[in-house]
Amino acid sequence: MERIAVIGQSGMIPEHVRLLAEEIGSEIAKRGAVLLTGGGSGVMEAVSRGAKQANGLVVGILAGDDKQAANEFIDIPINTGLGFDYRSVLLVHSADAIIMIGGGNGTLGELSAAYMNKKRVIIVENSGGWSNTVKQIAFEGCYLDERRTVEIQFAKTAKSAVDLAFQSIYNPVDPDKNTGLIGD
Amino acid sequence: MERIAVIGQSGMIPEHVRLLAEEIGSEIAKRGAVLLTGGGSGVMEAVSRGAKQANGLVVGILAGDDKQAANEFIDIPINTGLGFDYRSVLLVHSADAIIMIGGGNGTLGELSAAYMNKKRVIIVENSGGWSNTVKQIAFEGCYLDERRTVEIQFAKTAKSAVDLAFQSIYNPVDPDKNTGLIGD
Amino acid sequence: MERIAVIGQSGMIPEHVRLLAEEIGSEIAKRGAVLLTGGGSGVMEAVSRGAKQANGLVVGILAGDDKQAANEFIDIPINTGLGFDYRSVLLVHSADAIIMIGGGNGTLGELSAAYMNKKRVIIVENSGGWSNTVKQIAFEGCYLDERRTVEIQFAKTAKSAVDLAFQSIYNPVDPDKNTGLIGD
Amino acid sequence: MERIAVIGQSGMIPEHVRLLAEEIGSEIAKRGAVLLTGGGSGVMEAVSRGAKQANGLVVGILAGDDKQAANEFIDIPINTGLGFDYRSVLLVHSADAIIMIGGGNGTLGELSAAYMNKKRVIIVENSGGWSNTVKQIAFEGCYLDERRTVEIQFAKTAKSAVDLAFQSIYNPVDPDKNTGLIGD
Repeated sequence: MERIAVIGQSGMIPEHVRLLAEEIGSEIAKRGAVLLTGGGSGVMEAVSRGAKQANGLVVGILAGDDKQAANEFIDIPINTGLGFDYRSVLLVHSADAIIMIGGGNGTLGELSAAYMNKKRVIIVENSGGWSNTVKQIAFEGCYLDERRTVEIQFAKTAKSAVDLAFQSIYNPVDPDKNTGLIGD
Repeated sequence: MERIAVIGQSGMIPEHVRLLAEEIGSEIAKRGAVLLTGGGSGVMEAVSRGAKQANGLVVGILAGDDKQAANEFIDIPINTGLGFDYRSVLLVHSADAIIMIGGGNGTLGELSAAYMNKKRVIIVENSGGWSNTVKQIAFEGCYLDERRTVEIQFAKTAKSAVDLAFQSIYNPVDPDKNTGLIGD
Repeated sequence: MERIAVIGQSGMIPEHVRLLAEEIGSEIAKRGAVLLTGGGSGVMEAVSRGAKQANGLVVGILAGDDKQAANEFIDIPINTGLGFDYRSVLLVHSADAIIMIGGGNGTLGELSAAYMNKKRVIIVENSGGWSNTVKQIAFEGCYLDERRTVEIQFAKTAKSAVDLAFQSIYNPVDPDKNTGLIGD
Repeated sequence: MERIAVIGQSGMIPEHVRLLAEEIGSEIAKRGAVLLTGGGSGVMEAVSRGAKQANGLVVGILAGDDKQAANEFIDIPINTGLGFDYRSVLLVHSADAIIMIGGGNGTLGELSAAYMNKKRVIIVENSGGWSNTVKQIAFEGCYLDERRTVEIQFAKTAKSAVDLAFQSIYNPVDPDKNTGLIGD
């Protein structure tokens, strides 16, 4: 069973980002993957709502010890007691592929941890926050440093983001030979 | 959804322990709780087999980054990349109640972490290893030190162990006033 | 005793970055603070060499379990066994202030963890890598997201970076009221 | 530079345990090793006081983020932000050898983590708590399970405990062939 993590900011999110997140959650569920998130509000809640509406299974990797801190769409809360920062690293370890929507500093940390762990990240363009910024500043447009550890991909739509996530799981890029997969 | 962790040794286990673990897994699943384990062999595998035979949901909290390291009955592997020792602590944080069967040193560490986190542990008597030893040496027969943080309970059968686990979730003991719940 | 962490890339570093790191290490030691680093090569080694030449004390927070992995200037290796990603988060927790020199993706992750933990980071300008990029893209030039958690500062010289680090320790910014401290 | 961890309970400790811990701290310092502890009260404070009186260097691996939580004899507080349980595991990773004095449940967890990581532990006999109990119940008197991962040693005096700790560092036991080193 594939495990796709969706990362993005908590709190208030714009309407178009909420709709995007819900569609991504729905697509992940329809294709039979488990959705992983940090279990919080904002993007995490919207994507989880979408997954549940499509009868998916949603796991929330929580920072603290209170399972009530999970949003209402989490089926299985995993309490780490590690705090938000270590938790972000843990979330990445359990993901077969990662989709990034918008995002503040916490999401940036998850992106960095994903890259370090050679995990594919698909960034949804024009979804705000660090998702808007990374492309402009990434090394060669898709790497977080000169090591070219793993290529970040960019998607324009919910559907293409999930396509790329599944594609990366079934055709994993050889981390020693990145050959330029291209997002939509 | 309740989350019940079952802890016990990996590797070869005696036949009566295997049957006991399978029955416990089955009981957990029949009553609708999620089973959490470390995802490995031995007790972890037997309890997971039992849960799957009863159509339960099984989460494996793995030490490393390889999801193939999970036994075949794990529905959702959570890879921590933390190693066995930190992983054992993490497993405890996510459990609403814990059942202990047999057990070597790793299980002892999980018991200790559970006690520190005020988690109820039900030890199945005569299941071998540390499960046999703790009762003799525990402070007042049921505590791991003079702090009396949370009372360890003992069960004689698979069914009574699961009964006590659910009972502890629905009637959590006030950690500041342990009033002597008694196992079977 | 103040604890100042210096973060930056491992491996080969340009000569001017090496000299800068050595001077920063030396300044930290002369003023009586403990130097914390990840214990590796590159910037971590250069800053440690500088600190030892000024008779300082150097702690290396290592990813793995081998204390021989520390560079030769580490007085006290702390082995975490956590891997590089969790280790980066841990390093930040122990620092009273942080100086960032150059830096690849690992340094970016440390910067993000520092910001999440409300730790002051002073970035040395024109030292390469993410140190060159952050200023252009940070929110309002000094924040990693709209939360304005803690202001990142920028320094042009080794001495002013260490000045700002000590200043932030003795006059900690109220995280709830960032009033615009200005680097040189 | 050798790193010797001393583990034992926090809070009130009997006078003879306090004196024992101080003497062990002093011996560690006189022989030039760094003392590692959890940085708290009780045994941790007494051993640190002893080390400082002999001009030693003391590192405290703290559970939380407040460096003021360290006792007054800690030279270098390492804040982990991990909580007491994960912190106990971390402490063990950084120790070249471990001396155990008395001890409640937290110390038991550290003993278990040490054994899992093949770290030599020397238990001071008659120092109370789990230090009194382990010998009676350990497998073959010195192992925490049938794996015989690493032999626990026992010492009757402060001096012999430190002797055994240094001896284990310079003549590490081959974990694959435990040949029965004998304490005093």
